Amino acid sequence: MFSKETYVQRRAQLKAKMGSGVLLFLGNDDCGLNYAGNTFRYRQDSTFLYYFGLSFAGLSAIIDIDADKEIIFGDELTIDDIIWMGTQPSLSEKSQRVGVSHTMPSSEIVNYLHQCIQNRKTVHYLPPYRAEHKLKLMDWLGVPPMHQEACSKFIRAVVSQRNYKSAEEIAEIERACNVTADMHIEAMKVLRPGMMEYEVVAAMEAVAARHNCQTSFATIATINGQTLHNHYHGNQVKGGDLFLIDAGAETEMGYAGDMSSTIPADKTFTTRQREMYELQNAMHFRAVEALRPGINYMDVYDMAAIEMVEGMKGLGLMKGNAEDAVREGAHALFFPHGLGHMMGLDVHDMENLGEIWVGYDGKPKSTQFGRRSQRLALPLQPGFVLTVEPGIYFIPELIDQWHNENRFADFINYEKVETYKDFGGIRNEEDYLITESGARLLGKKIPLTPEEVEAIR
Amino acid sequence: MFSKETYVQRRAQLKAKMGSGVLLFLGNDDCGLNYAGNTFRYRQDSTFLYYFGLSFAGLSAIIDIDADKEIIFGDELTIDDIIWMGTQPSLSEKSQRVGVSHTMPSSEIVNYLHQCIQNRKTVHYLPPYRAEHKLKLMDWLGVPPMHQEACSKFIRAVVSQRNYKSAEEIAEIERACNVTADMHIEAMKVLRPGMMEYEVVAAMEAVAARHNCQTSFATIATINGQTLHNHYHGNQVKGGDLFLIDAGAETEMGYAGDMSSTIPADKTFTTRQREMYELQNAMHFRAVEALRPGINYMDVYDMAAIEMVEGMKGLGLMKGNAEDAVREGAHALFFPHGLGHMMGLDVHDMENLGEIWVGYDGKPKSTQFGRRSQRLALPLQPGFVLTVEPGIYFIPELIDQWHNENRFADFINYEKVETYKDFGGIRNEEDYLITESGARLLGKKIPLTPEEVEAIR
Repeated sequence: MFSKETYVQRRAQLKAKMGSGVLLFLGNDDCGLNYAGNTFRYRQDSTFLYYFGLSFAGLSAIIDIDADKEIIFGDELTIDDIIWMGTQPSLSEKSQRVGVSHTMPSSEIVNYLHQCIQNRKTVHYLPPYRAEHKLKLMDWLGVPPMHQEACSKFIRAVVSQRNYKSAEEIAEIERACNVTADMHIEAMKVLRPGMMEYEVVAAMEAVAARHNCQTSFATIATINGQTLHNHYHGNQVKGGDLFLIDAGAETEMGYAGDMSSTIPADKTFTTRQREMYELQNAMHFRAVEALRPGINYMDVYDMAAIEMVEGMKGLGLMKGNAEDAVREGAHALFFPHGLGHMMGLDVHDMENLGEIWVGYDGKPKSTQFGRRSQRLALPLQPGFVLTVEPGIYFIPELIDQWHNENRFADFINYEKVETYKDFGGIRNEEDYLITESGARLLGKKIPLTPEEVEAIR
Repeated sequence: MFSKETYVQRRAQLKAKMGSGVLLFLGNDDCGLNYAGNTFRYRQDSTFLYYFGLSFAGLSAIIDIDADKEIIFGDELTIDDIIWMGTQPSLSEKSQRVGVSHTMPSSEIVNYLHQCIQNRKTVHYLPPYRAEHKLKLMDWLGVPPMHQEACSKFIRAVVSQRNYKSAEEIAEIERACNVTADMHIEAMKVLRPGMMEYEVVAAMEAVAARHNCQTSFATIATINGQTLHNHYHGNQVKGGDLFLIDAGAETEMGYAGDMSSTIPADKTFTTRQREMYELQNAMHFRAVEALRPGINYMDVYDMAAIEMVEGMKGLGLMKGNAEDAVREGAHALFFPHGLGHMMGLDVHDMENLGEIWVGYDGKPKSTQFGRRSQRLALPLQPGFVLTVEPGIYFIPELIDQWHNENRFADFINYEKVETYKDFGGIRNEEDYLITESGARLLGKKIPLTPEEVEAIR
């Protein structure tokens, strides 16, 4: 946890931005896997962590701006809790650590909120993303799930704070990135033909665990890299395979790292793999070179996509004018996802607050296939932390669909593309901080060029 | 997944037991950690797995006994699903693998249930244990969460099937137990003074992951073994500590292993540790020897507790008649939990169905501290799989509370007990199958006696 002053200051800024009203923060509870008592690892809500720092189940908080009160609601431990789960500081001690002097039993929150409503104060809340949040909003505010509309002013105020990472946050993110890099380096060292995918996952996640980190999202480690978020780990690695990894560590405080790498199952890339790998690298370097304050991240996406089309033309897979192809969306056959996303207390930072507010400042999004998956389309600013992760994929089902419709036949050489349907996918990903003058790589560098990757194999 | 016939037969038995009505099975959905798209690992509901075998999010099922219909509700993949998450068999193919020939889109379940209600059929469901279940029962049946009363006849029918493990289930449980044993053996090999607790956890969980297993519950690995379910792993292990582990593997099919072990941080136990460890062993062996069909597991609990009191008398920590002490509950100062629990698709098998039905056949439970934590108080029967896990703990907060009240002063020598407040806790745990003639240990044996433990250190 950061010092008390960090949380006090964050809440003061939020109150100033909002001006009036009652802000309700739903802390996360435990969630049972197969019965209530057998829970997933505990994960506090990130906005609750940002303003109140306490990573314990069973808490809620209210900032009553109108009454100038901050209250944390929760319950003290019973002797049974202590016998089974161990001692903890009292609710009041915990709250004082984050500069909150008012605490109340959790059963009191309903009364408090009802009094606010009776006094015609507006109760603001953020979008519920767990079923437990929906039940609470229904019980406490009488709003049924289908009518639970979060307050966009509240969302924008939170986004306008969490967007800009402080020095202490950057240090914590960099810690997550260093562990993340070690996870990838470990995989590069252990991967051999004949291994099962889950054995690689075991080795990588043990690196995170040895640093007292969790994974920041479900690890992708697959010979089927053409599936973008593939969480299946039951295949055996064969010589000739490309192995795609997308994995990251989360520190105890909740900050994330997120990197991708693509490794040949053999010690070296084949010629065909290396050609395509170098093209992915070219997209990556084009994007990284462009990172600086003021440039719109959608423009960087376009640069990477155009770089890819130019390369695909050289390899005989595409044709025509590259800028036209990208404007019309033909590149998305091979690059169907975005270039990257904000990263912080969430690996896709603030995704629960809504991409339209986090990445588009409330403006409408493109509906074009591929481009619509770009999560950030704003001018970059110092303090932003984001990922750069262009990719190239040969997805048989998508190729079949487009080929059947002869979609973008002016740009795509389907006959050649058909010969790549067994290729798989390539993605590399690094994490960057936007600085006053450009951008800085976060965490230790992992092998990226074919030479670097082959050297560690 | 087992063969189609297993699931067909299980459902046929259930229908015969119930006779009439409509049985609703809520499959589990994905649960977001910090936003909807960043999910915990997927875990299907165990009763859904038992009757329908399919481990995919977004499924529900109905057995309409009155109409002699079995239907699985779910949705087919879109091209976006395939691009992001990969291909899967169609809903109809999946359902045929478990012998169900009717499938419907998930949006149809509301209509189906409403028609059942209109036709005065009774819709039965099991106790909801996730907030998502409560929302579904509210949306589909119009029953608000506080009135969601599960059907005890349905519960008892399910318990009467899941209680008796088949040969193919026992083989799968034994696979989980073998991986579980390897996790403990790994910890015994790597533990050294100076390590952090989470480094031991990393080594153990990597063993599970290398076998493509998950953990069946949150790993306990702690120098503070006196806290029964201690999930904190941030302490450094020191010479002289006792290190308590309670951890298990879950196979891909969802079957659990669950073992405990207690290891000296040094290569050998101290004299004081060894005395107490041998007493815990005596409780354990007393219980294991008693396992056979017909004996009530509460009687086995009493035997272990009496064994402990006798030993505590020898060590000068207790006094008086041992049977009286256990009947009155004085033993629970040191042994405040139960002797063990059923194990199968859940590590505490069927805990979501209610301990009163699973462990007490609907009869009232004791309210005595300690004894009330016994999860099973029924005569053992062939086919039961259960854990044996007596323990001895010195919980400072509990000792303080009892000492202040001078509780059970006729049985407890508080002056001597005070000198053990820094001792920690000891638990060992094995998994057994009740056979026609006695009981059989499941999974490979892990070191248990002090000699066995010291030999592997």
